[in-house]
Amino acid sequence: MELQFLGTGAGMPSKARNVSSVALKINDHASVWLFDCGEGTQHQMLHTPIKPGKITKIMITHLHGDHLFGLPGLLGSRSFLGTGAPLHIYGPIGLKQYIDTVFTLSETHVTYPLIVHEIQEEGLLFTDEGFSVEVRQLDHVIPCYGYRIQEHDRPGRLKVEKLRALNIPAGPLFRQLKEGQDVWLEDGTCLKSQDFVEAATRGRIVTILGDTRPCAAAIALAQDADVLLHEATSLHERVEHVNAYGHSSAQQAGSVAAEAKARFLILQHVSARYSEQDEALLIAEAKTQTNHVAVARDFACYRLDASGTVREAAGT
Amino acid sequence: MELQFLGTGAGMPSKARNVSSVALKINDHASVWLFDCGEGTQHQMLHTPIKPGKITKIMITHLHGDHLFGLPGLLGSRSFLGTGAPLHIYGPIGLKQYIDTVFTLSETHVTYPLIVHEIQEEGLLFTDEGFSVEVRQLDHVIPCYGYRIQEHDRPGRLKVEKLRALNIPAGPLFRQLKEGQDVWLEDGTCLKSQDFVEAATRGRIVTILGDTRPCAAAIALAQDADVLLHEATSLHERVEHVNAYGHSSAQQAGSVAAEAKARFLILQHVSARYSEQDEALLIAEAKTQTNHVAVARDFACYRLDASGTVREAAGT
Repeated sequence: MELQFLGTGAGMPSKARNVSSVALKINDHASVWLFDCGEGTQHQMLHTPIKPGKITKIMITHLHGDHLFGLPGLLGSRSFLGTGAPLHIYGPIGLKQYIDTVFTLSETHVTYPLIVHEIQEEGLLFTDEGFSVEVRQLDHVIPCYGYRIQEHDRPGRLKVEKLRALNIPAGPLFRQLKEGQDVWLEDGTCLKSQDFVEAATRGRIVTILGDTRPCAAAIALAQDADVLLHEATSLHERVEHVNAYGHSSAQQAGSVAAEAKARFLILQHVSARYSEQDEALLIAEAKTQTNHVAVARDFACYRLDASGTVREAAGT
Repeated sequence: MELQFLGTGAGMPSKARNVSSVALKINDHASVWLFDCGEGTQHQMLHTPIKPGKITKIMITHLHGDHLFGLPGLLGSRSFLGTGAPLHIYGPIGLKQYIDTVFTLSETHVTYPLIVHEIQEEGLLFTDEGFSVEVRQLDHVIPCYGYRIQEHDRPGRLKVEKLRALNIPAGPLFRQLKEGQDVWLEDGTCLKSQDFVEAATRGRIVTILGDTRPCAAAIALAQDADVLLHEATSLHERVEHVNAYGHSSAQQAGSVAAEAKARFLILQHVSARYSEQDEALLIAEAKTQTNHVAVARDFACYRLDASGTVREAAGT
């Protein structure tokens, strides 16, 4: 599993940071899920290995332009490139009218099934491709959501060598044991599944939040997450100003990560007032609250290994 | 007067060419008029001297996404940057609904007066800032317009030295002569305005067309233009294909320029199938029809001197 940032700035594009979008590559990069789609997202993608046809789902946090205005162009280009694979888009109420109106007026037609799901309530949004996605409303100036992407637990490995030592023949018995059923042999022996199957591996958890002040919903979505993407529009010295506009400081993002016991925090949605040199300040501030922190840059990749440990990596 | 290209590709962005937009800098760069605004136009502008606040008018040729989808973001950023100067936008019917719907759903509010003019008929669109702009409908698959931007003729210089030699006192008489009125002196002499004013300088003409097959409207708009911007989606070997989609070949663009007696032709809206190396082929093909031809590249600048002669130049 890999995260690649396509836009990490706030409000409007700068030379250093585009407006919001981040890609989550899942299932050995067979699929890409895109979170937000600010203007120029498809342009950014040209400089990454991500192909629009690989995107199976797009989740929009809220309808502010810096998270949305790249969507119609990307949808059009995905069609232009000849993709026939269905695409599901999730987001706040109004998303369907936005797409419908823009498509009608611009006479945009796409060649693939496009299914728009407007979020009606908090909770489980869908289960697909080996993941369950939960959504909750954050605390911004307009309806804005956060997404908790939880990988299904992976069943434990069958202890084949132990079964072979008992001369148990491979076949249906192996399957029953792996599926958790105990098995009675003809000689009256009972093989307990738990003795022959390793512990299940906990699915990994990625939490991706839209713009927000620190809030309980953010903490709930980030509970025990392997990685939390939280906005950090400013340093804490401007906290009153950014809170007034529905945003958070880096320190507040750190505090949410700490309360949620998230293992790794990536700060995103950074105001253009902060240069590359200022990133250390943002990190230091968040680190007063939680241990593992990075500031996302455009095109940066973070890979989650099987245990959910996060490391920055070259994009693939 | 200077043209700067912000996007010269067709349909979707590539690494080499963004989707359509071109800026016309007028009145010693006091104002910028923008023609079309494909996605990423504001991003391209970050790499030029053009500031959104300097844009006083935006003219949209048609509502296809590659000419339009950068508009809401640019309008929002122009506000974000604190500009209070009014902005007039011109384009096909539907443009107002597009802006209104997108602004409403994304809760975009701008701090400056934004006036949207939908084109109701061909002919004179407006006269302002020393120019008259005429619009005609081209031959594309949806309503699509071309713009002829004609600078007002500059009145000839008053021959002050000749008047001084006749001992005519500077003042109201000078003004009357300059304004074309003949003047009777007290001694009964008649001073004919035409004897004391140099010939007027013809205003320069810039013709900027949207997507189109070759058509009479294009030729009319480009009549005697100092520079014509015409699409050249493909080489002529693909003419049937591109004509079917409402586009032109480079040869056809050359032919329009020749029929209109346009002095300089700049090809734009070039398909991504053509590399930088192919530009010479596009030029050669158009040059079978007309003399002075260039292929626009993103960020290229073309300056018109006082006589309307066009030269490529560094952007200022």
